Amino acid sequence: MANFSTSDAKELRVGADFVLSDVDPGSTPNFKGDRDKLRKEFSEIDEELSELQEMLYANGRVSADTGAVLLVLQGMDTAGKGGVVRHVLGLVDPQGVDLASFGKPTEEELAHDFLWRIRKKLPRPGRIGVFDRSHYEDVLIHRVHGLSYADEIERRYGAIVDFERELVESGVRIVKVMLHISPEFQRENLEERLDRADKHWKYNPGDVTERGYWAEYQEAYEIALRRTSTEHAPWYCVPGDDKPYARMVVKYLLLDALRSMDLDWPEPDFDVDAEKRRLAES
Amino acid sequence: MANFSTSDAKELRVGADFVLSDVDPGSTPNFKGDRDKLRKEFSEIDEELSELQEMLYANGRVSADTGAVLLVLQGMDTAGKGGVVRHVLGLVDPQGVDLASFGKPTEEELAHDFLWRIRKKLPRPGRIGVFDRSHYEDVLIHRVHGLSYADEIERRYGAIVDFERELVESGVRIVKVMLHISPEFQRENLEERLDRADKHWKYNPGDVTERGYWAEYQEAYEIALRRTSTEHAPWYCVPGDDKPYARMVVKYLLLDALRSMDLDWPEPDFDVDAEKRRLAES
Repeated sequence: MANFSTSDAKELRVGADFVLSDVDPGSTPNFKGDRDKLRKEFSEIDEELSELQEMLYANGRVSADTGAVLLVLQGMDTAGKGGVVRHVLGLVDPQGVDLASFGKPTEEELAHDFLWRIRKKLPRPGRIGVFDRSHYEDVLIHRVHGLSYADEIERRYGAIVDFERELVESGVRIVKVMLHISPEFQRENLEERLDRADKHWKYNPGDVTERGYWAEYQEAYEIALRRTSTEHAPWYCVPGDDKPYARMVVKYLLLDALRSMDLDWPEPDFDVDAEKRRLAES
Repeated sequence: MANFSTSDAKELRVGADFVLSDVDPGSTPNFKGDRDKLRKEFSEIDEELSELQEMLYANGRVSADTGAVLLVLQGMDTAGKGGVVRHVLGLVDPQGVDLASFGKPTEEELAHDFLWRIRKKLPRPGRIGVFDRSHYEDVLIHRVHGLSYADEIERRYGAIVDFERELVESGVRIVKVMLHISPEFQRENLEERLDRADKHWKYNPGDVTERGYWAEYQEAYEIALRRTSTEHAPWYCVPGDDKPYARMVVKYLLLDALRSMDLDWPEPDFDVDAEKRRLAES
């Protein structure tokens, strides 16, 4: 019996009555093995994930109608978004991954609707897109610091739901993950960044400033997740203090998304036997 | 004693008197171990490569003056360019890699100088850029099929040398690799693509057509490599029939480029002790 499954991962789904504080960042829900074995667990599905990714890419190469997968990663600073990119996406073919990270918007981006810069970075057909932060920043940091009026933020929840429905209808499977860490875990991570010369570059004094708004961020997350966890694009709130656990869950969620696409190798658009003869004569 | 080194890799450098047919695609120059051990050999430098890549990325994050690495991959169809991307670049952080592949140019691209689309895909500071095919197509396929006039192709060799010098002066280390395979090896690869349903998508009838111009391509490569293998941006002609060997060589060349940048972790632009106090109080 496996120690974890796609169904286990999907139970972390956010519902309409979601309460963020009910999720313990240090827990490892549904994982039935030893924590020490997490790394092993993690590798057992690598091959299937990699094969399905290649199949998706193959389909994208022969038809522009091929769908895509979009992984949206959100979480407080040091929540492990970069680690997920490195350890989970690092296992599939880099050519099949469209990575985008969204920092402070430029002046040009600010002059447009908040989804403008997001649309430009959507994954190409056959690709797995990854958003390291996303359009959700526009209802998170904007709410916490009042960067937008309340009614504009209110409008955005609906705009996001509509936008994501449009994506899903165009063939994109959306996997939205909040990596949920504790303030204690963040403190440890920030301490490590200050203690080690090879980690200083990851430290930003602004992170401690933002840390002062922990409760406000938790509230903004809870509201955003409730309002935008839909049938077509549900949120998953993944406990993040145990990094191998969180990475494993994301991997199973990606696997589930890929499986749900019912992929197969594309049919050749040429006569295989005729080509074999041509090749033999070449 | 190691079975391979960066100096060994650099001996594959193309000189002014380069003769392509002198390079045996099935050979493994300078490799002193068993071929069976190539995979192991390959992994011994993974950690250093990965650390230097992270250091490069770290510098890019704190300063836009940081250089970059640009790996240019060329070779006949099935030469293993995609495998290099997957197996060599797949080992470093995907966030630090800027991948670009150059297929048939679009109408818009054709309306511009041949370097226009290339410039748009140059790696960002702190990144390792990878070109799967490149501006060299404009002196290779163009020469073989007469897609441009002879004097325009002549002009391009010089334009490429100038362009690459400009890049190097701006801080980009260029690593240019021709994966040199034999026509027999290509036949095996194409046969495999036709024999296996999971490989059909990689097959293109045009590949067999191009195969008919083998000698012309070899000549075009020889001329292009001779004309553009400069002090600042030398070419390396890497035997490609033994895939683990070729991938190992590329890895050592990348390692050499990264080492030559004399990287170090960037100095913090904040007061570490003051930040430790701020964090402790947060």
